[in-house]
Amino acid sequence: MLRLRFNADGLIPAIAQQHDSGEVLMLAWMNQEAVAETLRTGQVCYFSRSRNALWRKGETSGQTQRLIDLRLDCDADALLLLVDQKGVACHTGRRSCFFTAVRDGEAVTIAQPEVDPATLYG
Amino acid sequence: MLRLRFNADGLIPAIAQQHDSGEVLMLAWMNQEAVAETLRTGQVCYFSRSRNALWRKGETSGQTQRLIDLRLDCDADALLLLVDQKGVACHTGRRSCFFTAVRDGEAVTIAQPEVDPATLYG
Repeated sequence: MLRLRFNADGLIPAIAQQHDSGEVLMLAWMNQEAVAETLRTGQVCYFSRSRNALWRKGETSGQTQRLIDLRLDCDADALLLLVDQKGVACHTGRRSCFFTAVRDGEAVTIAQPEVDPATLYG
Repeated sequence: MLRLRFNADGLIPAIAQQHDSGEVLMLAWMNQEAVAETLRTGQVCYFSRSRNALWRKGETSGQTQRLIDLRLDCDADALLLLVDQKGVACHTGRRSCFFTAVRDGEAVTIAQPEVDPATLYG
């Protein structure tokens, strides 16, 4: 099996990247069970640190991530998930969570919501 | 200033992405000082958890990363660095650290070194 290096909390950071456009969508965390489920089902499942539970991405919002390829880095302590993102990755309704840039020391919003979060989460 | 959410060790994960090709090169960690230095100098500086010290990327190997844009995610606990990577990002001599893919449950090497690490590190 894969020899991943989980941290002291049993977690490993996972980058989600849209497989065709190359856009980095988000960074979240996985535990061993989340990695196994993701590989088994082909639907990305993270581990929510705030809820302390498996987080099947899109379960509530419908904005699922289909796994295209799972990669690990040279020291096996980070994952790169190539995914096909349905809709938007961010809970704010934006495509990517990385919508804030630092320009001249100031935080600047560089992307707007594509969908109203209220429609995603009821 | 930026209100970043560092973890209990004072660190935040940072993804380095080649700004034009979109290739995800590596994931490393920064502390507040590394973020400040990177923004000030325009050359990416991480924090090495193994050496417990600032890690000026490319200081030894010459494989530096010039910062193009620094972004933070929606909950300010992850960074995305758009960079211009000189040479290769990985200490193995490969362009990206994510050169291992999981295919049918097996770890498969999908990229070869572009340069001999011995020439990078003497």
